[in-house]
Amino acid sequence: MNCVKTAIQTLDKEMGQRVRKYIDNLTKPPGSLGRLEELAIQLAEMTSEVFPVVSPPGVIVFAADHGVVEEGVSAFPQEVTVQMVMNFLNSGAAINVFSRQIGAMFEVVDVGIATDIEADGLVNRKIRYGTSNFCKQDAMTRKEVESVIAAGYERAENMIGQGCKCLILGEMGIGNTTASSAILAVLSGQDVSTLVGRETGIAVEKIIHKQQVIVRALDERKPDRKDPIDILAKIGGLEIAAMTGAMLSAAANRVPILVDGFIAAISALLAKEICSTAIDYMIVGHCSVEPGHKIALKLLSKKPLLDLELCLGEGSGAAVAFPILTSATLMLKEMATFASAGISKE
Amino acid sequence: MNCVKTAIQTLDKEMGQRVRKYIDNLTKPPGSLGRLEELAIQLAEMTSEVFPVVSPPGVIVFAADHGVVEEGVSAFPQEVTVQMVMNFLNSGAAINVFSRQIGAMFEVVDVGIATDIEADGLVNRKIRYGTSNFCKQDAMTRKEVESVIAAGYERAENMIGQGCKCLILGEMGIGNTTASSAILAVLSGQDVSTLVGRETGIAVEKIIHKQQVIVRALDERKPDRKDPIDILAKIGGLEIAAMTGAMLSAAANRVPILVDGFIAAISALLAKEICSTAIDYMIVGHCSVEPGHKIALKLLSKKPLLDLELCLGEGSGAAVAFPILTSATLMLKEMATFASAGISKE
Repeated sequence: MNCVKTAIQTLDKEMGQRVRKYIDNLTKPPGSLGRLEELAIQLAEMTSEVFPVVSPPGVIVFAADHGVVEEGVSAFPQEVTVQMVMNFLNSGAAINVFSRQIGAMFEVVDVGIATDIEADGLVNRKIRYGTSNFCKQDAMTRKEVESVIAAGYERAENMIGQGCKCLILGEMGIGNTTASSAILAVLSGQDVSTLVGRETGIAVEKIIHKQQVIVRALDERKPDRKDPIDILAKIGGLEIAAMTGAMLSAAANRVPILVDGFIAAISALLAKEICSTAIDYMIVGHCSVEPGHKIALKLLSKKPLLDLELCLGEGSGAAVAFPILTSATLMLKEMATFASAGISKE
Repeated sequence: MNCVKTAIQTLDKEMGQRVRKYIDNLTKPPGSLGRLEELAIQLAEMTSEVFPVVSPPGVIVFAADHGVVEEGVSAFPQEVTVQMVMNFLNSGAAINVFSRQIGAMFEVVDVGIATDIEADGLVNRKIRYGTSNFCKQDAMTRKEVESVIAAGYERAENMIGQGCKCLILGEMGIGNTTASSAILAVLSGQDVSTLVGRETGIAVEKIIHKQQVIVRALDERKPDRKDPIDILAKIGGLEIAAMTGAMLSAAANRVPILVDGFIAAISALLAKEICSTAIDYMIVGHCSVEPGHKIALKLLSKKPLLDLELCLGEGSGAAVAFPILTSATLMLKEMATFASAGISKE
């Protein structure tokens, strides 16, 4: 991963200052567009553009399965991963609807679904047939982690090459909040009971069971807090690692990343562990109702744009937040200045 | 205003129930799209449509002046009202940019600018040349209040007739946060010092002065809490009343209203005072940094969609929030159901 580290540039703070001054000359009281102004400055710093552009955005959904579902941690059976992938390919899922709304490029990548799928439009980068049950053995090997990060990196590189100006990563993988919560427990050092709560359709007794499964896995696997590859190999997920790779690619290409919910925040934290400057290219789309998400956002030091009580994943919350980035860029590009409009400044 | 009262229908709760059931069959865990689901249900209740539509939205900006600016309550000179209206007509203001982004119908109406303006595209419904300084006399007569409410009602009626499916009201009027804060003091019964704070570019000593001006005006004018027309006549603003009229029209036509910031919330409260069911057709776009706004939202019992620290007015925050309504309607219309996608429900 050293090649990645050196490739991510620091933000162009000079451009940020230039855009900040420009914004203060737009026809509105200084600061009155609040976070839209901050977003415009951040986008300028990321891209070194006076008038940064975020359209078209690109959405990549990575799908994979989780061996830990054997332990009964999820409200849905494992087949739902495949069924939802088919739904993505047939344009019937929430992320399809919101991607169309924002005019996004769209791709679904199999990085580790447990069964073979023959379907038009599905990008095959399958590394293995799901992870192993990490209560019993490592989820995958270090080599597999590196391969799946590389696959994510490559797919983002490809979409950016096709003109994507802002990257949204989504995931599908029954069981992936369990893996994500386990990773967060390692990275935050917090007690598992504070991280795992209401999830997509899970009952109270199931939550306690899920917490116990995670505690057991952490005891057995003992992932190394300092080594993100070790964490992913021992308790990770293939789609989680792929999203991390895609984020590193976007950052290396100075393309803004609009981070979705809980699972995406975990991928973002891992990207940060691999290369701390990756985080400079991230904007958080929304705050999920998943309790671990708030803790992950604190570790990322990021404030979400939306708080609409979403917890679906797929990249859906980021896609719903995307028009706010558009508003910020259009404000910058299209508003008149006091001078151009002939308006008294004070 | 009695004709208005009888014309606003109650929500179609039966349609809401039907849509709620339908949403639970969409391909996602129940409730996982949080407030988007609630919005879709609300829009269905407002419109009696199984698949409500909010596009195209319509934006009407009402402009007028305030006699109370004589007291030095604003950071900007009164000429800025005219200059900003010209900016609206030349498409250079924030509301122009965001209206274009959301594909909105757009109109600017002079309901009481202090000077005559000859400009293409400006709709002239001038009731008088600004309000009187309400520290010294009533802002306007009851008859003028009724005329300007009727003018707002008529402009909304016209835009709805042209096909607008969701109404956003904006305002421009140097001094209008002073009038709005005074109205809020009457409606909330709260101390003026808790309502007036950081505004668009105002300094601390100016805030205290503004509070004193409002206290003096309330002492002199003694508006009747129970009579919204009396409140508007004594301490109101022409554009505030016009927005109230436009909201009553939208509600009577069962067209959803996306309420902007502080001033718009005051117009919404007045609409509620005139006809309590008007509030059923309102969704609040964002929470402004203006301290009175939170209090107004509490009186409206509404939770904002966005909190992006905006405080510009013009309808800008509502326009930035609008794509969220679009997301809610598209979710309903375009997502597959479990049955249509062949997905295991649990």
